[in-house]
Amino acid sequence: MPIVVDDRARRDRISEVATILIDRVGLGGLTIRAIAREAGCSTSFVTDFFPDKRAMLLQVLGDAAHRTKRRIDAVLAADPHDLHGCALAYLPLDEERRRDWKIYFAFWDMASTDAAFAQEQQRWQRIARDHFETILHARGIRSGPEDMLHAADRLLSLVMGISTQAAFDPETWSPVTMRAFMLREIDALLPSAPSHPIPSPEARA
Amino acid sequence: MPIVVDDRARRDRISEVATILIDRVGLGGLTIRAIAREAGCSTSFVTDFFPDKRAMLLQVLGDAAHRTKRRIDAVLAADPHDLHGCALAYLPLDEERRRDWKIYFAFWDMASTDAAFAQEQQRWQRIARDHFETILHARGIRSGPEDMLHAADRLLSLVMGISTQAAFDPETWSPVTMRAFMLREIDALLPSAPSHPIPSPEARA
Repeated sequence: MPIVVDDRARRDRISEVATILIDRVGLGGLTIRAIAREAGCSTSFVTDFFPDKRAMLLQVLGDAAHRTKRRIDAVLAADPHDLHGCALAYLPLDEERRRDWKIYFAFWDMASTDAAFAQEQQRWQRIARDHFETILHARGIRSGPEDMLHAADRLLSLVMGISTQAAFDPETWSPVTMRAFMLREIDALLPSAPSHPIPSPEARA
Repeated sequence: MPIVVDDRARRDRISEVATILIDRVGLGGLTIRAIAREAGCSTSFVTDFFPDKRAMLLQVLGDAAHRTKRRIDAVLAADPHDLHGCALAYLPLDEERRRDWKIYFAFWDMASTDAAFAQEQQRWQRIARDHFETILHARGIRSGPEDMLHAADRLLSLVMGISTQAAFDPETWSPVTMRAFMLREIDALLPSAPSHPIPSPEARA
């Protein structure tokens, strides 16, 4: 089915260009014309493919969520109980993840007035919380099983709070600081105190 | 100086109407025309007063930050060491605060590409962290003074993470749930375990 492959490549290309532009000029500055210019094609390359701008933006948000999912899946495939790796995979520790967080922020204005975007955000939050809770159940936590859900909520809240602060205050929240903060929080939670060595950026990013 | 008073009243009115509209249709849907319609005046009532839309939006964001500051100041005036009250004052536990958080979200897209908006967000974050740290220093924390900054970072990260999740998943994060979660986190941090009773919404909101 070569036509399907072509369609997917085209859709992916539009989404990729839109992602780059949102990072550069914000969602407020994004136009179909700018996407076409950046992609080196006509505006109909975009408009023929998506019924409207909103449908295109849902694709962009979905793709960012999919990249996040792939990063988490890769960690859990290597070790289904790797709580440190899972939490770090969510944080904006490299360029791709920093950009994906910026995509999320850009859509929070739309998500607060458009149900489809809100549902995508809610879905993402619930999946992340479930991941944390599943791993915590498998490993146990210091304060006992009754605190499992609270601990999962705390981990996701910290991930979101840190990532947001880092976007606007990268001086205070460098990747090294974010990583050290998160590993310390997880070590304090887990039953054994492994005095987890802070991994080098190369080993852990 | 009646002219100054008039100017302030006019500026406040425009900012108030813009805030209501951003809550209703998002920043992406906000137009000068819509503000004028909602305020029951001509578009020049807005355009004569602010040099451009961006200046008007900076006013809206500044006003939201000012309301947050007033809420925190009120708590600290009553008791400069009220960590519970201070943290709860940040959370979107009532309609005004829910709307102010929505204003923050709406501006995060702009803040990621416009330095003035990013600085306002960064300033807000640093003030909140300093508040937490100051109170923690005064009251002491269970794990010792070396963890003071880490604890302040954790409190602010939790506030931001919870407030964001609540915006898109109010079912999971009701005001009652947010309040209970935050009080529990603070109790776990402070040296004495006062088994803090969860206050009624009336007493604490």
